[in-house]
Amino acid sequence: MTQQILLTPGPLTTRIETRQAMLRDWGSRDPAFIALTAELRTRLLAVAEGGPTHACVPLQGSGTFIVEAVLATLLRPADKLLVLVNGAYGERIAAIARRMGRAVEILRWPEDRPVEAARVAAALRADPGVTHVALVHCETTTGLLNPLAGIAAAVADAGRHLLLDAMSSFGAIDIDLRTLPLTAVMASSNKCLEGVPGIGFALIEPAALAAAEGVSPSLSLDLHAQWRGLEKDGQWRFTPPVQVVAALVEALRLLDAEGGPPARLARYDGNCRTLVAGMRRLGFELYLEEALQAPIIATFRMPRDFPLGFAAFYDALAARGFLIYPGKLTQAETFRIGCIGAIDRQDIQRLLAAVEATLAAPEGA
Amino acid sequence: MTQQILLTPGPLTTRIETRQAMLRDWGSRDPAFIALTAELRTRLLAVAEGGPTHACVPLQGSGTFIVEAVLATLLRPADKLLVLVNGAYGERIAAIARRMGRAVEILRWPEDRPVEAARVAAALRADPGVTHVALVHCETTTGLLNPLAGIAAAVADAGRHLLLDAMSSFGAIDIDLRTLPLTAVMASSNKCLEGVPGIGFALIEPAALAAAEGVSPSLSLDLHAQWRGLEKDGQWRFTPPVQVVAALVEALRLLDAEGGPPARLARYDGNCRTLVAGMRRLGFELYLEEALQAPIIATFRMPRDFPLGFAAFYDALAARGFLIYPGKLTQAETFRIGCIGAIDRQDIQRLLAAVEATLAAPEGA
Repeated sequence: MTQQILLTPGPLTTRIETRQAMLRDWGSRDPAFIALTAELRTRLLAVAEGGPTHACVPLQGSGTFIVEAVLATLLRPADKLLVLVNGAYGERIAAIARRMGRAVEILRWPEDRPVEAARVAAALRADPGVTHVALVHCETTTGLLNPLAGIAAAVADAGRHLLLDAMSSFGAIDIDLRTLPLTAVMASSNKCLEGVPGIGFALIEPAALAAAEGVSPSLSLDLHAQWRGLEKDGQWRFTPPVQVVAALVEALRLLDAEGGPPARLARYDGNCRTLVAGMRRLGFELYLEEALQAPIIATFRMPRDFPLGFAAFYDALAARGFLIYPGKLTQAETFRIGCIGAIDRQDIQRLLAAVEATLAAPEGA
Repeated sequence: MTQQILLTPGPLTTRIETRQAMLRDWGSRDPAFIALTAELRTRLLAVAEGGPTHACVPLQGSGTFIVEAVLATLLRPADKLLVLVNGAYGERIAAIARRMGRAVEILRWPEDRPVEAARVAAALRADPGVTHVALVHCETTTGLLNPLAGIAAAVADAGRHLLLDAMSSFGAIDIDLRTLPLTAVMASSNKCLEGVPGIGFALIEPAALAAAEGVSPSLSLDLHAQWRGLEKDGQWRFTPPVQVVAALVEALRLLDAEGGPPARLARYDGNCRTLVAGMRRLGFELYLEEALQAPIIATFRMPRDFPLGFAAFYDALAARGFLIYPGKLTQAETFRIGCIGAIDRQDIQRLLAAVEATLAAPEGA
């Protein structure tokens, strides 16, 4: 069977060089793997220009694990988290903190509206008990890009800590730690970095990490201990997924060779413009206002008179070599198509041809 | 560079077919990957004959993550855990439960002595508050095999739940859930199953899982929610490491083709006997009494008059193509050599020749 093109928010289509980097066995405490981990941490910091100001702490698991680890490590029992929510991933941050027993406030916007810095500033003035604020940079629920700079300034002006879930933006959309006041940025291996899934990481201010000894109620998710271990001897505390690490290092080298995040963003932007224009031509409406749409994943409304249910539409496109993604909205019937991964405009044009062919012969699906 | 042979407790040397299974991209919510996850769960249960009595819940992360997840999911705030400790991994279980804020008692033995069922029975009689007991089957610290059947009978007779850390035994040493009373068994992908690291899993009695809704203080490590999700639509709640899953399914097919756990144990046993006899011939003494030594990883004492420190000895063997493992004992100067992975007696004989050559020319190291 030929490899299908994954038009998803990750795991996604990766380069063959990235997957081939997994063909080797590594001793996790061997100097060669210690060097690989060091290269990983340095390269991840460099993506956000965080070398002078932040420390990189990788962690086994999915993106949700690193988000929970940052909350577990940085929030003390007396702290209070304000979560800025306009989608499912914001809701998840609040759910994680609540499960952990931490005090949580939520400020909500509709799924198709961006977080507003002025409302954040007002909320922080009204509640001096809030110590930390959490924001999802690009809400994968819809593909909406929240206006980071203004929100970060509002949080910094109020003297609170901002924790940024950059899961689906890191590596493509600009995050410059030289100018943005962020206590922690979290992301994972398998989105815009185009690695394979299995590790997340956080870039955290060392002062925040240093103050966090023994805070985490979870041993596995304790990023203070993970950081201390890495600084001491360059080793992960617990068995790392060595092949996933090797794949991510290769993917980071390929990101560099492509021209870094600006070049990657330009490619994704081309993918997204081609996709949106083509889908419009075929009768599909973008869920978001175009100005709010990040070139990461696009949400389309299911047309009212559509001849197929989502499952049949999915199967028809899968049979033609493309995997799309279901919607995650509570308010509207939608589906999603990713613009990220090792794909280009030609792949999107081939997808559009497959959609057109499916619409022409829905009963053949 | 040629691939070195890993003589470690994992990540270890895997078969090329297992690594090649990682060359494909998978959509994590696609029917093909849902089928792969179903095969994974069925095969893992079959290894321990647990199909009729247990449910398999896989989890992203290392072995420590799945141990913490089982404790987080099954221990309620009013419960009390008795940990049977004769090595570092037993101590780690106690540390995890304490961090989580659960009541913990420890029963300790020296690192070179097995856990004794009679002492466990007496401790349970003396403390009716203990609800769960945790045991490490094969203590990777030394390579000691604890006598599971007698301990399991003692815990069952006392009406308590036994949680078995089978990290370095599962897939080789017999664990038969048709006869052994175990509430939960935990293991990971990258030891005797010969997969690559990145997931752990637990086989848990469904009644225990069903009673655990909302118990876990961690959302990421909540195995009740993970189980419910898998039972509902066959999907992982959060992004799974798809390539690691594919590698483990391939490794489980290869385990089957080899003849299952008995055939694998016989191969490891041959490796271990060859290793111990050869090392004795070269002047190295086994740390444990031979009767207590599992054929998983062997601990050797550093000879008193040894011409090299561990680091130089390691480097010399690494240059000759073999990665050995440092000791983890508090009481003695030791090093360890693994007997597991996709290796056979010829590999061990080649290692012994490399050790002999290193001893003959230590200054050439």
